[in-house]
Amino acid sequence: MLPIPIERVLEAQKRIEAYTQLTPLMRMDSLIPSRANKILVKAETFQKTGSFKLRGAANFLLQHLDEAKKHGVVTASAGNHGQAVAAMSTRLGISATIVMPTTTPALKTENAKRLGGKVELVGQSFEEAVQHARALSDNKKHLYVHGYADPDVIAGQGTLALEMTAKERFADIEAVIVPVGGGGLAAGVCTVLKAQRPDIKIYGVAAKNVPTCWELYHGKQPEAPSRRYTLAEGVAIKSTNTEIVDFLKQHLDDFFLIEEESIAHSIALLAERAKIVAEGAAALSLAVLLEEKIQEKNVALILSGGNVDLPTLSRVLQRGLVEQGRLARLHITGTDRPGLLHTITEVLFRTQANIIQVSHTRGTLNIGVGEAKIEVDIETRAADHTQEIIEELKKTSLRVERVF
Amino acid sequence: MLPIPIERVLEAQKRIEAYTQLTPLMRMDSLIPSRANKILVKAETFQKTGSFKLRGAANFLLQHLDEAKKHGVVTASAGNHGQAVAAMSTRLGISATIVMPTTTPALKTENAKRLGGKVELVGQSFEEAVQHARALSDNKKHLYVHGYADPDVIAGQGTLALEMTAKERFADIEAVIVPVGGGGLAAGVCTVLKAQRPDIKIYGVAAKNVPTCWELYHGKQPEAPSRRYTLAEGVAIKSTNTEIVDFLKQHLDDFFLIEEESIAHSIALLAERAKIVAEGAAALSLAVLLEEKIQEKNVALILSGGNVDLPTLSRVLQRGLVEQGRLARLHITGTDRPGLLHTITEVLFRTQANIIQVSHTRGTLNIGVGEAKIEVDIETRAADHTQEIIEELKKTSLRVERVF
Repeated sequence: MLPIPIERVLEAQKRIEAYTQLTPLMRMDSLIPSRANKILVKAETFQKTGSFKLRGAANFLLQHLDEAKKHGVVTASAGNHGQAVAAMSTRLGISATIVMPTTTPALKTENAKRLGGKVELVGQSFEEAVQHARALSDNKKHLYVHGYADPDVIAGQGTLALEMTAKERFADIEAVIVPVGGGGLAAGVCTVLKAQRPDIKIYGVAAKNVPTCWELYHGKQPEAPSRRYTLAEGVAIKSTNTEIVDFLKQHLDDFFLIEEESIAHSIALLAERAKIVAEGAAALSLAVLLEEKIQEKNVALILSGGNVDLPTLSRVLQRGLVEQGRLARLHITGTDRPGLLHTITEVLFRTQANIIQVSHTRGTLNIGVGEAKIEVDIETRAADHTQEIIEELKKTSLRVERVF
Repeated sequence: MLPIPIERVLEAQKRIEAYTQLTPLMRMDSLIPSRANKILVKAETFQKTGSFKLRGAANFLLQHLDEAKKHGVVTASAGNHGQAVAAMSTRLGISATIVMPTTTPALKTENAKRLGGKVELVGQSFEEAVQHARALSDNKKHLYVHGYADPDVIAGQGTLALEMTAKERFADIEAVIVPVGGGGLAAGVCTVLKAQRPDIKIYGVAAKNVPTCWELYHGKQPEAPSRRYTLAEGVAIKSTNTEIVDFLKQHLDDFFLIEEESIAHSIALLAERAKIVAEGAAALSLAVLLEEKIQEKNVALILSGGNVDLPTLSRVLQRGLVEQGRLARLHITGTDRPGLLHTITEVLFRTQANIIQVSHTRGTLNIGVGEAKIEVDIETRAADHTQEIIEELKKTSLRVERVF
């Protein structure tokens, strides 16, 4: 399967051109102001279906068009790959079955259906869904579309890197950071850069909570498949292909793991400074810079996709505010008499705090008899504004405790 | 001041090229799936400083470079224009004073300072800040940089439209939608399109809560300056220039007003489907489509900027969830006995509702003696999932009332 010649990626580029978007490569040095450097962002978030997966699926299906039209295709995926296969099949008039575990959130099944896929809910885990998809492939002759372990898929993903190297602004780039799940995107990127720009360092990145590919890359025995949550579910692959891992061992200069807090922080930074909605897997690239894991100054980040649901995004942004000290919860205790809440609101009004939520209780047992406790969540302009508000509250002789 | 020849915009384009980003024009037909049409998005959200204002400020300052360097520049703005003038002045080695009212949120004063501007906080209103800035211009000879009523500024903003008409995918566009505040961007866009593509309809859009320019355009007497809140504060200009209004009367095919709910909905749609963080003023363009105000099928939306703060964005996304029926508040009343809350959580677990917040009270006077009321906020997969959860709760013989 690997290595594949660069020509195969160049051919893929022509083949899929009419079906994919040429996504922007934007300069965004101010993403991390402390680094006096050049930061390019390959915003694959704006690819159709919201991720790079369309490239590989498009190239694979166009290469196997007759068989795919005749027998239909099948894949197992609750994520970006499933959406890509569904959308591209619909476009080409191919019947596509997307197998997902029964535990898949309705939002994702709806997405695949909306894009024209026939969704089958089978099995309790992703592995069981794969088994069923493989059985459909064997029994009904549906062509199986692998999410990463296929040379046509890898060649398709590589076209993303071709779009980068073609840009003048990419000329002085010293390092590229790529999220690694199954490794199809990373293998495609390595194929292109090693052929066209062997001087550039290539760094892989994954989520610490699901480190399977990282463990294999570093020659460790993978832990039992983790069920731990990660914001970067796009790279949360629990097994991968040894040929791809060997290829990445040869070509990636290093491979990092990122904690959830840092993924959340990066999603918030991308929204606030880059104005881009990035999914957790995509935000990993920025997290590598944020955690100062590499030395190179001129860096290109691959933002692999933007499929994050609104509840998650909203929660991550709130979390970002807490980390920036702009969202705080205070417990304020004082004598339970008329005017207690009024005393507090006077200070909050004067200091221009924005009240999010207030609850006023008495009779709880961890405060003195005759005392009342008020919990108030406030939104402020900045960390020092929060501090100023707390100082002013303390001047009223109330007891103020900051919860977060 | 107007009209300006198209050549002036073409010259501006060469002049500012090295200082601005060429922002993407992306095809995003699925933004509104019910419309079977072509939607292009000019994502000026990714312009440096986060809005189109950099174009006009750059062209103005480069045209007045000697005077600006000698005497410094001054402007009044708490928003995108202030940031643009600060950033461009820093880049060119010009001393820039940005006057803001004392009521300006610290976040905005910090932004202007971070970009190298000298911030002066003067006056209670924007008008008083303008007065002070004009006085500084008169007394200290600082060059005044107007936010829109200047031919060099308008020529600069027009370069955004040149980038659109240059793209092949723009060839079959029938209408362009542009947000209108002072009208500088709209005037620049009209200048370019009327010269290069007179067949294209141009629609202006503003926020209903601050309709000054719209009123003047439609020949109405403007109301007293409104202090009403709008999410689209970027176009909340309370007075404008009559020459610009006259020009827009000639060249805009229509001019619409948008309600706040629709602005919020559009911001959420742009985040969820386009993966773009757009400020309220930018989201106005999409709202015009959302409200089906125009008939043309192939439309280009100008997303003028992305400077929305995280608290606002997070709140708007939450609001979007409520509108989609995916975030709901339930009041559940039942006999106050051990196990009441457990009965509820059993249903919520079984139906896979995500609990955001619970509060359990008794002793409130609008429920029966011996009854307790539980308020619970839940997050669900979709509107029909919410409905299913409520039906299941009702089967327990508890009284269920949906608050939102």
